[in-house]
Amino acid sequence: MSIYLTLKQECYNANMQLPKLDLVVYTFGNVSAVDREKGVFAIKPSGVPYEELKVEDIVIVDFDNNIIEGNMRPSSDTKTHAFLYKNWKNIGGICHTHSTYAVSWAQAQRDIPIFGTTHADHLTVDIPCAPPMSDDLIQGDYEHNTGQQILDCFVSKGLNPEEVEMVLIGNHGPFAWGKNAAKAVYNSKVMEEIARMAYLTLQINPNAPRLKDALIKKHFERKHGKDAYYGQGC
Amino acid sequence: MSIYLTLKQECYNANMQLPKLDLVVYTFGNVSAVDREKGVFAIKPSGVPYEELKVEDIVIVDFDNNIIEGNMRPSSDTKTHAFLYKNWKNIGGICHTHSTYAVSWAQAQRDIPIFGTTHADHLTVDIPCAPPMSDDLIQGDYEHNTGQQILDCFVSKGLNPEEVEMVLIGNHGPFAWGKNAAKAVYNSKVMEEIARMAYLTLQINPNAPRLKDALIKKHFERKHGKDAYYGQGC
Amino acid sequence: MSIYLTLKQECYNANMQLPKLDLVVYTFGNVSAVDREKGVFAIKPSGVPYEELKVEDIVIVDFDNNIIEGNMRPSSDTKTHAFLYKNWKNIGGICHTHSTYAVSWAQAQRDIPIFGTTHADHLTVDIPCAPPMSDDLIQGDYEHNTGQQILDCFVSKGLNPEEVEMVLIGNHGPFAWGKNAAKAVYNSKVMEEIARMAYLTLQINPNAPRLKDALIKKHFERKHGKDAYYGQGC
Amino acid sequence: MSIYLTLKQECYNANMQLPKLDLVVYTFGNVSAVDREKGVFAIKPSGVPYEELKVEDIVIVDFDNNIIEGNMRPSSDTKTHAFLYKNWKNIGGICHTHSTYAVSWAQAQRDIPIFGTTHADHLTVDIPCAPPMSDDLIQGDYEHNTGQQILDCFVSKGLNPEEVEMVLIGNHGPFAWGKNAAKAVYNSKVMEEIARMAYLTLQINPNAPRLKDALIKKHFERKHGKDAYYGQGC
Repeated sequence: MSIYLTLKQECYNANMQLPKLDLVVYTFGNVSAVDREKGVFAIKPSGVPYEELKVEDIVIVDFDNNIIEGNMRPSSDTKTHAFLYKNWKNIGGICHTHSTYAVSWAQAQRDIPIFGTTHADHLTVDIPCAPPMSDDLIQGDYEHNTGQQILDCFVSKGLNPEEVEMVLIGNHGPFAWGKNAAKAVYNSKVMEEIARMAYLTLQINPNAPRLKDALIKKHFERKHGKDAYYGQGC
Repeated sequence: MSIYLTLKQECYNANMQLPKLDLVVYTFGNVSAVDREKGVFAIKPSGVPYEELKVEDIVIVDFDNNIIEGNMRPSSDTKTHAFLYKNWKNIGGICHTHSTYAVSWAQAQRDIPIFGTTHADHLTVDIPCAPPMSDDLIQGDYEHNTGQQILDCFVSKGLNPEEVEMVLIGNHGPFAWGKNAAKAVYNSKVMEEIARMAYLTLQINPNAPRLKDALIKKHFERKHGKDAYYGQGC
Repeated sequence: MSIYLTLKQECYNANMQLPKLDLVVYTFGNVSAVDREKGVFAIKPSGVPYEELKVEDIVIVDFDNNIIEGNMRPSSDTKTHAFLYKNWKNIGGICHTHSTYAVSWAQAQRDIPIFGTTHADHLTVDIPCAPPMSDDLIQGDYEHNTGQQILDCFVSKGLNPEEVEMVLIGNHGPFAWGKNAAKAVYNSKVMEEIARMAYLTLQINPNAPRLKDALIKKHFERKHGKDAYYGQGC
Repeated sequence: MSIYLTLKQECYNANMQLPKLDLVVYTFGNVSAVDREKGVFAIKPSGVPYEELKVEDIVIVDFDNNIIEGNMRPSSDTKTHAFLYKNWKNIGGICHTHSTYAVSWAQAQRDIPIFGTTHADHLTVDIPCAPPMSDDLIQGDYEHNTGQQILDCFVSKGLNPEEVEMVLIGNHGPFAWGKNAAKAVYNSKVMEEIARMAYLTLQINPNAPRLKDALIKKHFERKHGKDAYYGQGC
């Protein structure tokens, strides 16, 4: 029996949430889950329909993109996942989709403004949209460079990936992450819903103001501060 | 056996309607039901997914926010519910969601104009949007003050909570109430649908006129006047 | 056994399509079916949720609004149905809903322009929007006058109810009809879809042209002309 | 037993995907599958609801529109399918729908701009919108001429139907094709999703730029180039 069975199961479960949450059509998405101790992550195989996906199809890859276990080719976005795991030591799962509203903001090349408490419950800044890649990076190691592009965006904006767990890639779409694969999927769904609300908000009032600082602070700390009082504290 | 079992069951049933009616993703909502005789209300525990929620998880709280029965932490919005029950003696249930279209109007900081008979069947005025809270109130007892903010909005606009059973909190989202928890959920769904229609109406005709007074009066009285002739009269 | 059982069953079946086709929330809709020989029609009782509706709840009413059979109060819109059956001898069923996109056009007080072949497959003109009623008619016999308002709209525009089987009432919502109740529901669904497409068309191109006459004629005759070649000819 | 049973089954399966993928209401769509060796294609009968459709209802037609096998009248769009199979030797299936967003772009008479990688994963150019037909062609052999119109559009724009597997007909709606019927349906769904994202993109940013050439090339070759590395290579 594979020593990676638990990890594969976590990855499989998280991937199977994507169609249930209406975050994907066909195979337009992938989730990975990391095992820091073993130095590997589990990721969806490329182009396999969700209704056919099995736990044993999940591929195990190390942070240098070597396939450690599995008979199938891993997701074509694997190098982006590997890059982020290598550079951000505290994330446990990554989710990439082409969900409709998040993609539309990415294609519009705009950060998603923080308009309300639904947003502030999850992060205190606009959801950043990384600019499209330069041509030489595209022609180089594209998926690896997509990871680089996310990292550069976070460095240049002074963002902490443990506080801001989501990003848009200009012209492409969303990536989200979290302490594990389930949380990465959760953040993808939240981002999609925030993207939809922000779109509607601007349609109703093109001059809608950003959320005031006091409310941003209050809502985020309700859920994430040291005196957080949302949830059952476990 | 708990003397609050019936109340918990009413609260549980109403909460379980939220995902069925597409009013919530994850745990972004909560419903409470009051027992005026016993001076308590039942409310959803904080952060528990709907698919895991059980009747016995429902928490019993009094109007001063003391937990009377239950092992879980009540919704983080409990103080808002308590405040409204304390001040409005005739309401029997309260529902708070982050439903998409209602939130978008709240983020746009606009009242929802009364554009048609679907709206007038339920209330005779625009759905009010309370302004965002002042910074000192936010930094104070936030959820209590959210109740205060709703009350202030109704007082300043001369609205009666038995006639207008819904409100938007600027930058946050909708609250609705009614004679019981089921009616509060009903009003939340109606508000979401009205919010969606009003949004579309303005997209089709930015100069769409408000509904004329004679039609407002006619439709509301058809359903709610002393000679109401909608429904089976029970 | 009731001599109206078949008629009630037709009416019941058609009503039960409304929630399946996403044309209603709660009880915001009603369908009727006529029996010309007996001079009566069957209609949904007022305010009864679809999940509780039973065949025997359906109410039988004559064209002067007398209840002929049934223990429940008929739909509050019954007089509108009676008026239309009385004046338009060849229609067999009527459907009224508050479907989202059709209501939004009605609230915007605009005819729905004929933009494409989906529309032309069903009617050759814009879907008419009757103007809101004058105040004295509203204060009079409101539901009867709603029928009058529809009739006046068709007379003033020179429309034939056997060719144009749908209308919007300004500020209110859609009515559709057809040779039987099932066809009335079909026309309601088609109108909703046409309303949605026309809304999106104008968002994408505010100067989108109406469909050219040759295409209007061609598509309508493909389905409805004397040499129609759509369907199985039965 | 029919020698066309396998072909009918392929055609039936593809047709039954349309309601599951939310690409049709009622009978507003049809899929065909070709057998090049036998010189025939299988197509949905006209006007038959999906819930009643059976494998044996599928009609077998040759490229000159003669019915080879089947008791029902074939889709009213059959001549368009025949024309395309006759002219484009390498396509194996065709799908026509009235899906909402694709129709809306067709009614707006606009090509769908290539805004992102979701689009570029499937084709490297804007999705072309053929202009509405001239009046004399409409009054002639309409469905045959619809095929001609698609062909002319591809010739005039220098497009290859093996690289661009989808088109909009101005004022009408989308056609898609592929190596088989399942792939034609897949392309219809992808086109609908791309149409929806492009619509939202322009709402969020009316000046959204087209995707840069390097990204167009990169994404298309990832999936379709000679060194393609998406999927399992089978």
